[in-house]
Amino acid sequence: MARSHGRRSDQLRPVTITRNWLAHAEGSVLVEFGGTRVLCAATVESGVPRWRKGSGLGWVTAEYAMLPRSTNTRNDRESVRGKIGGRTHEISRLIGRSLRACVDYKALGENSVLLDCDVLQADGGTRTAAITGAYVALADAIAWMRQRRMCPGDPLVNSVAAVSVGVVGTEPMLDLDYSEDVKAETDMNVVMTGRGDYVEVQGTAEGTPFDRTALNGLLDLAAAGCAELTRLQAEALA
Amino acid sequence: MARSHGRRSDQLRPVTITRNWLAHAEGSVLVEFGGTRVLCAATVESGVPRWRKGSGLGWVTAEYAMLPRSTNTRNDRESVRGKIGGRTHEISRLIGRSLRACVDYKALGENSVLLDCDVLQADGGTRTAAITGAYVALADAIAWMRQRRMCPGDPLVNSVAAVSVGVVGTEPMLDLDYSEDVKAETDMNVVMTGRGDYVEVQGTAEGTPFDRTALNGLLDLAAAGCAELTRLQAEALA
Amino acid sequence: MARSHGRRSDQLRPVTITRNWLAHAEGSVLVEFGGTRVLCAATVESGVPRWRKGSGLGWVTAEYAMLPRSTNTRNDRESVRGKIGGRTHEISRLIGRSLRACVDYKALGENSVLLDCDVLQADGGTRTAAITGAYVALADAIAWMRQRRMCPGDPLVNSVAAVSVGVVGTEPMLDLDYSEDVKAETDMNVVMTGRGDYVEVQGTAEGTPFDRTALNGLLDLAAAGCAELTRLQAEALA
Amino acid sequence: MARSHGRRSDQLRPVTITRNWLAHAEGSVLVEFGGTRVLCAATVESGVPRWRKGSGLGWVTAEYAMLPRSTNTRNDRESVRGKIGGRTHEISRLIGRSLRACVDYKALGENSVLLDCDVLQADGGTRTAAITGAYVALADAIAWMRQRRMCPGDPLVNSVAAVSVGVVGTEPMLDLDYSEDVKAETDMNVVMTGRGDYVEVQGTAEGTPFDRTALNGLLDLAAAGCAELTRLQAEALA
Amino acid sequence: MARSHGRRSDQLRPVTITRNWLAHAEGSVLVEFGGTRVLCAATVESGVPRWRKGSGLGWVTAEYAMLPRSTNTRNDRESVRGKIGGRTHEISRLIGRSLRACVDYKALGENSVLLDCDVLQADGGTRTAAITGAYVALADAIAWMRQRRMCPGDPLVNSVAAVSVGVVGTEPMLDLDYSEDVKAETDMNVVMTGRGDYVEVQGTAEGTPFDRTALNGLLDLAAAGCAELTRLQAEALA
Amino acid sequence: MARSHGRRSDQLRPVTITRNWLAHAEGSVLVEFGGTRVLCAATVESGVPRWRKGSGLGWVTAEYAMLPRSTNTRNDRESVRGKIGGRTHEISRLIGRSLRACVDYKALGENSVLLDCDVLQADGGTRTAAITGAYVALADAIAWMRQRRMCPGDPLVNSVAAVSVGVVGTEPMLDLDYSEDVKAETDMNVVMTGRGDYVEVQGTAEGTPFDRTALNGLLDLAAAGCAELTRLQAEALA
Repeated sequence: MARSHGRRSDQLRPVTITRNWLAHAEGSVLVEFGGTRVLCAATVESGVPRWRKGSGLGWVTAEYAMLPRSTNTRNDRESVRGKIGGRTHEISRLIGRSLRACVDYKALGENSVLLDCDVLQADGGTRTAAITGAYVALADAIAWMRQRRMCPGDPLVNSVAAVSVGVVGTEPMLDLDYSEDVKAETDMNVVMTGRGDYVEVQGTAEGTPFDRTALNGLLDLAAAGCAELTRLQAEALA
Repeated sequence: MARSHGRRSDQLRPVTITRNWLAHAEGSVLVEFGGTRVLCAATVESGVPRWRKGSGLGWVTAEYAMLPRSTNTRNDRESVRGKIGGRTHEISRLIGRSLRACVDYKALGENSVLLDCDVLQADGGTRTAAITGAYVALADAIAWMRQRRMCPGDPLVNSVAAVSVGVVGTEPMLDLDYSEDVKAETDMNVVMTGRGDYVEVQGTAEGTPFDRTALNGLLDLAAAGCAELTRLQAEALA
Repeated sequence: MARSHGRRSDQLRPVTITRNWLAHAEGSVLVEFGGTRVLCAATVESGVPRWRKGSGLGWVTAEYAMLPRSTNTRNDRESVRGKIGGRTHEISRLIGRSLRACVDYKALGENSVLLDCDVLQADGGTRTAAITGAYVALADAIAWMRQRRMCPGDPLVNSVAAVSVGVVGTEPMLDLDYSEDVKAETDMNVVMTGRGDYVEVQGTAEGTPFDRTALNGLLDLAAAGCAELTRLQAEALA
Repeated sequence: MARSHGRRSDQLRPVTITRNWLAHAEGSVLVEFGGTRVLCAATVESGVPRWRKGSGLGWVTAEYAMLPRSTNTRNDRESVRGKIGGRTHEISRLIGRSLRACVDYKALGENSVLLDCDVLQADGGTRTAAITGAYVALADAIAWMRQRRMCPGDPLVNSVAAVSVGVVGTEPMLDLDYSEDVKAETDMNVVMTGRGDYVEVQGTAEGTPFDRTALNGLLDLAAAGCAELTRLQAEALA
Repeated sequence: MARSHGRRSDQLRPVTITRNWLAHAEGSVLVEFGGTRVLCAATVESGVPRWRKGSGLGWVTAEYAMLPRSTNTRNDRESVRGKIGGRTHEISRLIGRSLRACVDYKALGENSVLLDCDVLQADGGTRTAAITGAYVALADAIAWMRQRRMCPGDPLVNSVAAVSVGVVGTEPMLDLDYSEDVKAETDMNVVMTGRGDYVEVQGTAEGTPFDRTALNGLLDLAAAGCAELTRLQAEALA
Repeated sequence: MARSHGRRSDQLRPVTITRNWLAHAEGSVLVEFGGTRVLCAATVESGVPRWRKGSGLGWVTAEYAMLPRSTNTRNDRESVRGKIGGRTHEISRLIGRSLRACVDYKALGENSVLLDCDVLQADGGTRTAAITGAYVALADAIAWMRQRRMCPGDPLVNSVAAVSVGVVGTEPMLDLDYSEDVKAETDMNVVMTGRGDYVEVQGTAEGTPFDRTALNGLLDLAAAGCAELTRLQAEALA
């Protein structure tokens, strides 16, 4: 089975990270993993949610959504249905947790950064592209804050990137596109820091349950993929 | 008072119409009026809403939304708030009505086209840009249908374009950007066909009520603006 | 085609304005345009919405709704469906904007008036009847406030009235009833001040797009209709 | 303590029942108990809810609501809040159950009648006025159906009327107005058939719990009140 | 017709009241009336709702819900449907009113107790079991507060218990189980204090309307049932 | 630091699995992991969701919820708030996916099993207890179906159990209770089949990101815990 873009099973799709895609946001990135295209906008707000007030600590959170026609068949808008679906909730929470792993709340002071990750076009791996792009938008937003001396210290203490891996047929593969994702027996999303530690590991047997050997193989692929994404993030921010 | 892009009071902002911006939609356009950037996606569905079944007639409808950080200060997502605001409803309805003016339902047969207009970046005139771009996406979607022989005839019987006009201070101006819009005494959105007839005229006195002379002046400006947009649409579709 | 009440194409239906229809409201009017019957209640509240606090300025807003069996076939309650429809939103916003054109916010002080316009019976032109009646209820509410010396000045600086006009077949007509409205090619709602200036002009081609001549004809009819309604409002308030 | 309208503790307020208040509904009544004014509209639909299809039996149901300014201080619209409150639900269910006691479902055939009871002005006893008026609207709607030979038999096998009773201070009273209701220690709503049987008895100790003697006294008052209302209903329908 | 548990028409089902069923709640009771099993949890909060602040008075309220598979056929979750049904609202309000009859708000001080009554298994009489059990949980919660000297006095001035009675066929019966409830012509829920006074009487003719004699018979049965439940509550609390 | 129940870092809390806790459900289990108590009810429905009709395949799904006072401080009901939170959504989806790993859809035929997992008392590990208990309820429900010959084959092809592991301080621990969970640097939920394969691995760095060695240590602990739970499930089903 040939992969899209003629790539090997351990290769990422072509990745592009375009900064400052939006005029208004304090940080904004259009990130592309092959045909997957996510617009990440960072909004800085002075102040924190009520439950955190007076703590001296900042906060980082995220919201993920898909445009209705980002996908092959159209999905109804969640605003029209009047409620947010489980998948959307789950991914928003994942992105928020992942980005909080980069941040020193104390150095951020009582400020918040909200990352909006809107999928303009979906071709597999939207959540991992969102995390990877949102990190860059967050870095820009923090730079913006530091220029204005809003933060007591340097809040950006780490970087994060994320990639999906999976077993398609019996072959472990890096960075699945949609056609691979629907065939995958096992699907795993891995979020890692720039130093190579884990922030999130989420593996799911869509078909046959997987054994420890398969798990180890996927973790190896993901580590290499995240390292490459970390390099691309650094390049974009340079 | 100098206008953005150094333009005269009767000039449009730079307009770009990029077709096929999305891989999945049957028609898709990224339309830009200066800093206003709207992604218009047309989805073709065979079949019509329940109330229209068996009529032999097609249907065209639209949904408008803004990304939370398309604006200068972030707006909460309507999906998170659990309901659609009045402004969103109003503009979705306006876009739908405007596009239906181009379509012969009988020639369309019992098929539907849904236009999603998502504002990626807002700088005034988002609804008029949406209508202008959605027309092009609709034309592409209809061409797609005709290639597949889904329609009994040619459903596209007209074109529509839209522009905003307003009185800023005492001067009538074409295609207001956001900074002009907030200062406008009177604000009018005009939707016209390619033949120069009116589909919608919506004028509102934000400040002082306006007289018949002012109304006539605005209608003149709008007619010229819509004619120019009609030319740009034709060029994009050529 | 004979019109209801044997009237000419440039004649209003019989209009009645009954003040003080409710015991509790600070101003209340039952307004009738032929078979259209709208109950308008003005509620005075000291204080303004959060975003306006400390400005020294007042606020006027409106909510429109139809009783489920005001119409020929019953409509589900929006409270039961759990959300407000687009048409309701749109008309509520229109009524609010229209009435704000009569009011000097500074003279009102930090007080609010909320106009509830509930359609008890619908026979076309409910929004224009609502605006026309709500103005009278607002005038009564402001008189009530001034008696209690709640306002720093006289907030009522203008009057507004509204009427619908349309092209039925090829004939322009004033104040369409429901049977005319469903047949109209073009439908326009015009809100004017007592001095003859425009507050809102909303024209829609339901069928064939209309040209400038038709637009001018409709504007002439509307101006005469609004002038007559202004006279009837003054009479009711005398 | 003097009662409104100079009445004795065992007297109803002035009651008026105006039939055919609405042009469109198959039955409609404006019912007034003193200052309480409820508009009752009966809508006939052929067919029954899904769970009752194929049974050969009809259905009767009701919805109750208050206009926002029917009360002394304005209540937010339930449509705006996006949900129906407990009190509204409870009263809608009570009215539906009460009216179903008059109806032979088999004779009604697979048809439905929906009673909308909208409180235009509230001064205590809105639910009992609604039941009393809705019965008359239901009778008119059933007559309308019988004229069109929609029903296999005569579905109206009984009549219902309702009244509130309560202990104010230590005195049992009939048909409490709002000022009495807020002071009542015990509050009871009684729905009875024209033959003097009970359909609903709902007594609540708002203050001190009540004993059997008090309960008996209230039941006596209610029986007399319902008998008088039954007479007024018959008179209205004559 | 034999009754479940071989009981007479004037006998309760076996009743068990298990205190401290939950580790976290300030008072908690698992109450069983035969196969009906309700978990009642009392939550103490210092402070009262906004509308009661500064009054020096406390507040008691309740929420009732059924687990989806407490019943014979599964009911959808109200959280999934996004709204609370009328029956749930009605019963929550009934439980709250009933428990408030035991409490001296002044002695409670500005503290609140919220009773959650969740039906784990339903076999008729869930609301009466809930009231009977919630009283015991409330008593425990108040004891907990008094140990911590949160209350200015002793807020528990009464006890309440509740039971259902009904006419099945022509026989009046105490404490209906589900199979009896669905056959009952008349269904009545009675809430009484430990001293034998009424807090709530809610009788409904599900089938034939009932006369005063039937009503009196049901009230007699209920009084005996509530007296027995009061004894069981006292025993459990001893 | 001593653990609750005096256990070692690689020991489970006392686990009890009580079958048939409910009278109505086709399978029901009260599962306890120490102080965590989850009621799992399996509902069998013939038929499958619309999108799966005609496939010949069955379906298994789950809903998770917490009673408001299952926790130390009360949580508002999701039904009252009108929407389901992200955490609830996420866990419901996890339970459903986990149980589907045991099932041969073809052997199930076009039948559905819905697992309701309601947390009566929470002390950490509610999702893993829910999965472990729901498997037993599912097994009972499938046995119930097979007795009635509803299934074309034996749908139960595997078993699943789940446990949480985490790093508290620097020590990896099995089956965290609430007090340990809030202190954990890393938190991982692992779902495994009875044969020792993975269905889900979800690891999150709550504090410091974790390295591959830590991950491996946690996976070892989890494998031993799941094996023990598998043994207890088999014992309960014997």
